[in-house]
Amino acid sequence: MKHIKTKYEILRQKTYILIHGSGTIAGKTFDLILLGVILLSLLLIMMASISKFDNKYHSFFYISEWIITVFFSIEYILRIISNKKPLSYIFSFYGVVDLLSLLPMYLSFFIPGSEVLGVIRTLRLLRLFAILDLIPILNQSSHIKESLRASMNKIIVFVYFVIVMSIVLGTIMFMVEGGHNGFSNIPNSIYWCIVTMTTVGYGDIAPITPIGKTIASFIMIMGYGIIAVPTGIVTAELSRNRKSKDIKNNCPRCKTYIYNEFANYCYNCGEKLIDGTVEIN
Amino acid sequence: MKHIKTKYEILRQKTYILIHGSGTIAGKTFDLILLGVILLSLLLIMMASISKFDNKYHSFFYISEWIITVFFSIEYILRIISNKKPLSYIFSFYGVVDLLSLLPMYLSFFIPGSEVLGVIRTLRLLRLFAILDLIPILNQSSHIKESLRASMNKIIVFVYFVIVMSIVLGTIMFMVEGGHNGFSNIPNSIYWCIVTMTTVGYGDIAPITPIGKTIASFIMIMGYGIIAVPTGIVTAELSRNRKSKDIKNNCPRCKTYIYNEFANYCYNCGEKLIDGTVEIN
Amino acid sequence: MKHIKTKYEILRQKTYILIHGSGTIAGKTFDLILLGVILLSLLLIMMASISKFDNKYHSFFYISEWIITVFFSIEYILRIISNKKPLSYIFSFYGVVDLLSLLPMYLSFFIPGSEVLGVIRTLRLLRLFAILDLIPILNQSSHIKESLRASMNKIIVFVYFVIVMSIVLGTIMFMVEGGHNGFSNIPNSIYWCIVTMTTVGYGDIAPITPIGKTIASFIMIMGYGIIAVPTGIVTAELSRNRKSKDIKNNCPRCKTYIYNEFANYCYNCGEKLIDGTVEIN
Amino acid sequence: MKHIKTKYEILRQKTYILIHGSGTIAGKTFDLILLGVILLSLLLIMMASISKFDNKYHSFFYISEWIITVFFSIEYILRIISNKKPLSYIFSFYGVVDLLSLLPMYLSFFIPGSEVLGVIRTLRLLRLFAILDLIPILNQSSHIKESLRASMNKIIVFVYFVIVMSIVLGTIMFMVEGGHNGFSNIPNSIYWCIVTMTTVGYGDIAPITPIGKTIASFIMIMGYGIIAVPTGIVTAELSRNRKSKDIKNNCPRCKTYIYNEFANYCYNCGEKLIDGTVEIN
Repeated sequence: MKHIKTKYEILRQKTYILIHGSGTIAGKTFDLILLGVILLSLLLIMMASISKFDNKYHSFFYISEWIITVFFSIEYILRIISNKKPLSYIFSFYGVVDLLSLLPMYLSFFIPGSEVLGVIRTLRLLRLFAILDLIPILNQSSHIKESLRASMNKIIVFVYFVIVMSIVLGTIMFMVEGGHNGFSNIPNSIYWCIVTMTTVGYGDIAPITPIGKTIASFIMIMGYGIIAVPTGIVTAELSRNRKSKDIKNNCPRCKTYIYNEFANYCYNCGEKLIDGTVEIN
Repeated sequence: MKHIKTKYEILRQKTYILIHGSGTIAGKTFDLILLGVILLSLLLIMMASISKFDNKYHSFFYISEWIITVFFSIEYILRIISNKKPLSYIFSFYGVVDLLSLLPMYLSFFIPGSEVLGVIRTLRLLRLFAILDLIPILNQSSHIKESLRASMNKIIVFVYFVIVMSIVLGTIMFMVEGGHNGFSNIPNSIYWCIVTMTTVGYGDIAPITPIGKTIASFIMIMGYGIIAVPTGIVTAELSRNRKSKDIKNNCPRCKTYIYNEFANYCYNCGEKLIDGTVEIN
Repeated sequence: MKHIKTKYEILRQKTYILIHGSGTIAGKTFDLILLGVILLSLLLIMMASISKFDNKYHSFFYISEWIITVFFSIEYILRIISNKKPLSYIFSFYGVVDLLSLLPMYLSFFIPGSEVLGVIRTLRLLRLFAILDLIPILNQSSHIKESLRASMNKIIVFVYFVIVMSIVLGTIMFMVEGGHNGFSNIPNSIYWCIVTMTTVGYGDIAPITPIGKTIASFIMIMGYGIIAVPTGIVTAELSRNRKSKDIKNNCPRCKTYIYNEFANYCYNCGEKLIDGTVEIN
Repeated sequence: MKHIKTKYEILRQKTYILIHGSGTIAGKTFDLILLGVILLSLLLIMMASISKFDNKYHSFFYISEWIITVFFSIEYILRIISNKKPLSYIFSFYGVVDLLSLLPMYLSFFIPGSEVLGVIRTLRLLRLFAILDLIPILNQSSHIKESLRASMNKIIVFVYFVIVMSIVLGTIMFMVEGGHNGFSNIPNSIYWCIVTMTTVGYGDIAPITPIGKTIASFIMIMGYGIIAVPTGIVTAELSRNRKSKDIKNNCPRCKTYIYNEFANYCYNCGEKLIDGTVEIN
């Protein structure tokens, strides 16, 4: 049975190669067309959101939406049937996004107006990450991803700290500014505090009383110092990551410091050094 | 006397375990309930601050406040009696916060309206740090705390410099903008200068005269460069801290450089290396 | 033929030295005059753009523009004829800028009003980089340039990520804020998202609905953390670059670690170390 | 002559100790009083700038100003006569600031209204740096100062780049936004560009046309990446500085790598290591 492939099996495999085989010409072409259609679809959604254009070309946008929806529907079905484990695709992040970007148009038969939810299709743009991973340049991202994953715990602690400080300081500002000047309630004051601590500073809410301004100044200078923390964490992680790759330091077995970078064997214990690289654990 | 425990003693110990013993099931449950009540109380305070909700559900908010106040009062008393050194708790940071978050409601019997000070309860949110310290992820924070403490002196120098510069430049801007355009007095101008140097930039006060704009541009570019300083300090500290943990370098006694990371004794003076780790002093 | 120089050849060489020979007195003088004229021309364009000045001194600005245009035209022709490969200059970045800064004035004979395009001349200011490279201080820039080039790939990945996130989050905000409050269409919402993530925060568009403010807070805190990534990348690159210059580590031939910083020969393979410096590959 | 001190000489020396001898009790007291008077004078200037207070307590402010002016005048004269090289003090930065903070009040006899220039006294606040240098904590600043001085050249290159980019991009924005929307002239557009690139973002000027918004987005993302450069420079410098202090690496004479941190002599060439520290040149 293993060697006998039904016609369907062969077709499925061909489809799989078409969709996933970015190394083949057919696969590359498919990826580029998909990339183009996603970008086009995005452009159409953006332009349709501008009322000036929508009033003029409404039917054009409507028909285009349907053509793109049909195209994406076919792609969605192909992805399911070509996959050996269709369920793992359907419930993957990309699978859910692909489905959600189709549904609104079909739903609009039953619930008129629901086609506006088509904007959810924008999320398909994230697939660009997958498609563009072909280009060697983007392989670099794995290094950054690794560092970010390693510093995730610390970033979470930091974000938690920022949120608690925002709640506490936001409440204090609400008491100080006495519910006026945009500080109309505590959630609004917390929102203002986040806007201030992150140094965004819209200015839609700004303190007016002298005490409020003094506290705000204190928050800003604190936020200015706090911005150093995530930067420090990521930088330390990136430097460390780099180091483990750049400099061969220790034998993985006896941990002896190895001077000769091109050593093939540890000079102390004779451990074979794989690929001439020694990792810091 | 040492081995004889009165009924009260046993009860106190049980209470202590309930409150502080986060390793036991009872302690964990207590912590989670406390966490929930704090978050709930916070949510109620926030919603009560929104006048739309307050007008509608005023009595609901009022009753809830009292229930939570009673709950916190019981917890406060338990904390005092269960502690062997009650005074050290009462005058600790958490003790003062716990008391301050109860007082306003009781004071409102004598001074009507003082219950609005209940918002001070938000500070109890800081206890989340203590509660969530259970979760191993947050143990990471000790590393950051350590680095921040080590770089505190330099950050203070830096903040002092920023404040002096803000006062000097704020005064200059007051002279330049001639007391108009929001630069109505020196404190306001200083406030504007801090808003600008920290790159928050509300825009509630902005220079209008050409000279004012030129000086402002200078301040911004300076502030842009200055932001590098705290970041540099913290990053250098974090990298250093990491190094002392990652690489075993020196014998704690004779400071001889040790190559073998898994060494148990210093090869020079024979000092026993605890847990196979060598600290950089 | 090689040794015989026509009068024209000699003239061309002299012109070449005048323009490019920043080591000679004539070349230096030429550079300084050019620097002065570019700055003057810039000042005139700026002042002419202020309607108050333009109304008063219009003819003065007009005549000055023509004098400067003639000066730059002569310089442009000299650069072409003095260059051995005139085409490589004409199609270089500076060549195109030089031409574009001349055209508008000449075009204004045929198309009245096109002289306002003269502002393109501002781009000539970039030549200051070339001119000021004389000053030794600026040689430092090569170090930064090198680090930036090395981290370019990672920065591109990062910028791509920021743009995708802005499109996705911008679309979500458009849906949430319902097309009001400045979030009038998707491109505007994306613009707002970039303004927020980069912590610029003009405040011309700001969320008003509670859900919008919550999402905005999330975007800000995320953006606050994200700012760490490019900083980390560049810092790691700069530190690495510095290291390769500061510490002599390995023999360029056999990569043996070399202790003696002033070593002239590798102690292992006898490789001559140029200038006493050893580079890390 | 060397050992004979006239009465005047002794008085001068006593005054010198009073002013400069921060180690003595008298000197410390003098410093603290001076600190207090400077802060008081600052507070008075600030309050006098608030028209509400000035209207009420004008004569009080006026008299206080005179008392402080007299106090500072005496201090100024003492500083001159106690110094062995009076001219070096008079023309030093502090000397000029001290004089400039006195002049306005005396000038107001001849030119009424010139006393408002008294705000220049704020610059005296910079003397706090000198006074507070007593406190050991602030000795840390020397480390930061050193790093900043070392990275000054690079920061200058960077600031120069930011300014050129601001001029070029500001001019482009002036052309794009067509002189409206606050981009009324080129200097204003440059000002806007600096406000944007430094992520301050007041919002007093903001692009309105779609092209303007697109360019602005590009500027912001660029500025976001550029902020990494000064941070990277300072961080690399601070890390380097720290390293040269933390780790003893090489003998200053033969540059041999020294393992033992507490070595008093280089184990290779016998060079005496001063204070047990070895500097990396």
